[in-house]
Amino acid sequence: MRSVDLSLRVRYSETDAMGIVYHANYLVWFEIGRTEFCRVAGFPYRSMEDSGLWILVTDVDCRYRRSARYDDEILVRTTMPELGSRIVVFRYEIFGPQNVLLADGGTRHVFADSSGKPRRAPKEILEGLERFRSAGS
Amino acid sequence: MRSVDLSLRVRYSETDAMGIVYHANYLVWFEIGRTEFCRVAGFPYRSMEDSGLWILVTDVDCRYRRSARYDDEILVRTTMPELGSRIVVFRYEIFGPQNVLLADGGTRHVFADSSGKPRRAPKEILEGLERFRSAGS
Amino acid sequence: MRSVDLSLRVRYSETDAMGIVYHANYLVWFEIGRTEFCRVAGFPYRSMEDSGLWILVTDVDCRYRRSARYDDEILVRTTMPELGSRIVVFRYEIFGPQNVLLADGGTRHVFADSSGKPRRAPKEILEGLERFRSAGS
Amino acid sequence: MRSVDLSLRVRYSETDAMGIVYHANYLVWFEIGRTEFCRVAGFPYRSMEDSGLWILVTDVDCRYRRSARYDDEILVRTTMPELGSRIVVFRYEIFGPQNVLLADGGTRHVFADSSGKPRRAPKEILEGLERFRSAGS
Repeated sequence: MRSVDLSLRVRYSETDAMGIVYHANYLVWFEIGRTEFCRVAGFPYRSMEDSGLWILVTDVDCRYRRSARYDDEILVRTTMPELGSRIVVFRYEIFGPQNVLLADGGTRHVFADSSGKPRRAPKEILEGLERFRSAGS
Repeated sequence: MRSVDLSLRVRYSETDAMGIVYHANYLVWFEIGRTEFCRVAGFPYRSMEDSGLWILVTDVDCRYRRSARYDDEILVRTTMPELGSRIVVFRYEIFGPQNVLLADGGTRHVFADSSGKPRRAPKEILEGLERFRSAGS
Repeated sequence: MRSVDLSLRVRYSETDAMGIVYHANYLVWFEIGRTEFCRVAGFPYRSMEDSGLWILVTDVDCRYRRSARYDDEILVRTTMPELGSRIVVFRYEIFGPQNVLLADGGTRHVFADSSGKPRRAPKEILEGLERFRSAGS
Repeated sequence: MRSVDLSLRVRYSETDAMGIVYHANYLVWFEIGRTEFCRVAGFPYRSMEDSGLWILVTDVDCRYRRSARYDDEILVRTTMPELGSRIVVFRYEIFGPQNVLLADGGTRHVFADSSGKPRRAPKEILEGLERFRSAGS
């Protein structure tokens, strides 16, 4: 199963009074991960949105194992374990310095039109994503 | 089981380009919910932190059912379904206008000292929280 | 000149690794202040937006004097020192516990249509806001 | 005067219901810009903090000229027009696609110890920063 990696650095704004990254920001990193996954797959999310295909989040889960600090280099690794004509599932692993696993989690989505009504994704996009996600990386 | 309600209004900063509340902000609302729960229970989270008891998030999940918009009035309902000497679990329901359920989810936490090392919560706090959470509201 | 007050509590998500509120969040509080100002004046910002009148930020400034901490009660005091058919200016004072001034600043805005093109505000709204802002509080 | 450039992509979380980047996020980009400036100058902000030198924001201003959208590539250009033993000033220009200037602004800071008390910056850091900022880029 294909995985796509993205690097980022912890921003000061992402930390909290515990001195570590505020937990909700991992969901933001997940979003950056799936944006990159779609871009590398040849279907930038913004283009999909412009063509009337929106991807709404219906479920999210995250397990936190270690904390991250300001200015740490973070690696977001994203896979797409499930894809259907109406839904798509992403999984994420977040690594910190020395490749330590900080957190992992997933998001489930439905395809929708710009008004938020569920719809099927176009065949061309489904086939392209399917080919990409299932290939070796 | 006791529940504690808190009201808030959607901020412009909490919306995204879909015109709705960005999904990670529900985790922020969860946090406000448990802050209020602890305050009403007589154990303000800030006081616990000042006394050396930190409550770290280890797991979070959320299911999104409907979307919220700028300036909507939101109700956050919080319960504490599980409490041990080392862990605590909160559940949340997020309601929008006309009492529509927008999302629900949960967070699991460990008690820790200020360095992040797991510890037991003091007996007095555990007994106080236990009495509060299990009482009728 | 009329001022409108709004109270809020510092959220954990608003703090940073210095243990205080991250400075950009004061701009969010400014926004909440002007939302409340417009609401109390009888012209909720969301209604203006729904009717095709958008208020875009063109300038912002803020001076930070003291810091705020998690769970502090904050008072946002908003005035509207300038109003024209094409622009509007707000000023803000942010107070912390014991009425200490934490920060003050301002924002300048242009009226625009939903596409972002500058426009004049409707006479009815201008007159209503003018009457409100210049009255004693 | 030396300038340091940093590239980033607009995150979905940074947009708002107007479909553009929420204005307070430009302050976050300013912060990323000065973090990069200090790193390139040889004085990573995190190292300064670890050695007991904190840089607190006392003033910020920003002028917004054009808006940015989700997934736009952004360039943050940072300079340090003023440096003293007790204060430092940064200026920023934010460019969008096609090198269009989106916004520019500045921040003023005081040096402080970890308790927030003003202090002088060490001579070694001042001389290093001075040499770097005034050199041609």
